[in-house]
Amino acid sequence: MSQLLTPLNTYACFNGTVSFYSHPSTTCKGEMKFTVYLPPRSQSEPLPVLYFLSGLTCTEENFMVKAGAQQFAAKNGVILVAPDTSPRGANIPGEEDDWDFGTGAGFYVDATQEPWRSHYQMYSYVTQELPAIIAAHFPVKIDRQGIFGHSMGGHGALVCALRNPEQYRSVSAFAPIVAPMRVPWGQKAFTNYLGADEETWRSYDASELVLTTQLKHSILIDQGTADTFLEKQLMPQVFEQACAKAGQPLTLRMQDGYDHSYYFISTFIEDHIRYHAEILWSE
Amino acid sequence: MSQLLTPLNTYACFNGTVSFYSHPSTTCKGEMKFTVYLPPRSQSEPLPVLYFLSGLTCTEENFMVKAGAQQFAAKNGVILVAPDTSPRGANIPGEEDDWDFGTGAGFYVDATQEPWRSHYQMYSYVTQELPAIIAAHFPVKIDRQGIFGHSMGGHGALVCALRNPEQYRSVSAFAPIVAPMRVPWGQKAFTNYLGADEETWRSYDASELVLTTQLKHSILIDQGTADTFLEKQLMPQVFEQACAKAGQPLTLRMQDGYDHSYYFISTFIEDHIRYHAEILWSE
Repeated sequence: MSQLLTPLNTYACFNGTVSFYSHPSTTCKGEMKFTVYLPPRSQSEPLPVLYFLSGLTCTEENFMVKAGAQQFAAKNGVILVAPDTSPRGANIPGEEDDWDFGTGAGFYVDATQEPWRSHYQMYSYVTQELPAIIAAHFPVKIDRQGIFGHSMGGHGALVCALRNPEQYRSVSAFAPIVAPMRVPWGQKAFTNYLGADEETWRSYDASELVLTTQLKHSILIDQGTADTFLEKQLMPQVFEQACAKAGQPLTLRMQDGYDHSYYFISTFIEDHIRYHAEILWSE
Repeated sequence: MSQLLTPLNTYACFNGTVSFYSHPSTTCKGEMKFTVYLPPRSQSEPLPVLYFLSGLTCTEENFMVKAGAQQFAAKNGVILVAPDTSPRGANIPGEEDDWDFGTGAGFYVDATQEPWRSHYQMYSYVTQELPAIIAAHFPVKIDRQGIFGHSMGGHGALVCALRNPEQYRSVSAFAPIVAPMRVPWGQKAFTNYLGADEETWRSYDASELVLTTQLKHSILIDQGTADTFLEKQLMPQVFEQACAKAGQPLTLRMQDGYDHSYYFISTFIEDHIRYHAEILWSE
């Protein structure tokens, strides 16, 4: 496995470092970028690692520069990793045409359809190649991994956790797409990446997956009530009903007046990191 | 005085609101934008107000979305206001040519030279028109104003405070340009905005101003040691020496390994807001 990392910029932050990296991805067949926050405690001992999956149009940078997460990662002793949201520069016709599909919108699936399948393998990248690279290069407790995300990345986090309950001990999300099969963003992405057969979509739909796999710990979701995507694209009540049916513990917090932005994420990021740290540091 | 405000976006944040506004500026002869963070306490009582002046290339947005300031403004009960860094769309030839001059680079001076003087009146805008608008529209304790900023905006904050010690009770800065007369950024801006006579530059140079006006409270400055602009553009030691000569109390903290970015600002924003709040809430 190629694990060559090219260090890009590094910034001191809350006595630790935010670092940008690029590497040749065997999964996505091209250069991929990610960011890592190493809190000060990582200089003296391995720490749990918490992956953040970003939403549509984001890169590996947005979360690190807007969420205000580092102070709480430092306080709680967890390493943060934020990958990019898709391959870039794959030279696939149409990849730059839409803001909600293609570049910046990998949807954390392994595409099976042409012309996407050669590069758009974000599910395998996030769950396999990236964790192997992180384990090889950073002082992480590899058996202590959590995952969270926002919007499309909240969908990604839920799917990664529900399909790999042994790998991810904790999962949470901000304003996630919980039922991609039922909403326009998901239907557009799945049709193009996975094809017309909706049966193949189920393995990337959290509200379907939770019916067959439950997680040990309660899932934490924050959702703003003033989010303009709430009714059409997010539909947290679908996941809430599926969790209730399946017996999956869920803490769904409807946050009055909050929207879909990083102003919302930054307000509740402390709660999420503390939630993950409590699970990742226990047992 | 025209005080017509056009509300743009509003975002819930830490139980308060981040709001963007546009208004016709009589000082800058065109539309100007600013952002306001109202913490939850502002719903029940007037609060002190703290102005943040941003650096080169920034708009009224950067500070609000990257500094992580809102949580500490909420905690300490201060209103935050961040203006844009220059007039925009003034249609002055060359205004868009340089990243360090013209649009996004007003340098918080009142230009006296053609073609800039008709619009580029950022000193008067920040110290007079903007505070009047804020006082007219928001629940501020108008006799409790503080000011801080970053880089070019650190220069602006120091100059505004030193020239108006009765107006601003507290002043601090992140990586400020403290001696603009001696550095390339300042020399370029002052030559174009103020003309070739360097005598006219002194009233916009903190290291000159502090020799004749001292402030009651200690000035707080944080400066990263890994800041690539440190030696050529920032030169905090010049201000340190001037303060020592003048008897002005100064807390200059050289922060090991930090650079010029918002990762640096976010790390120390809590200290700055607490510093201002202690002064603004005292007496």
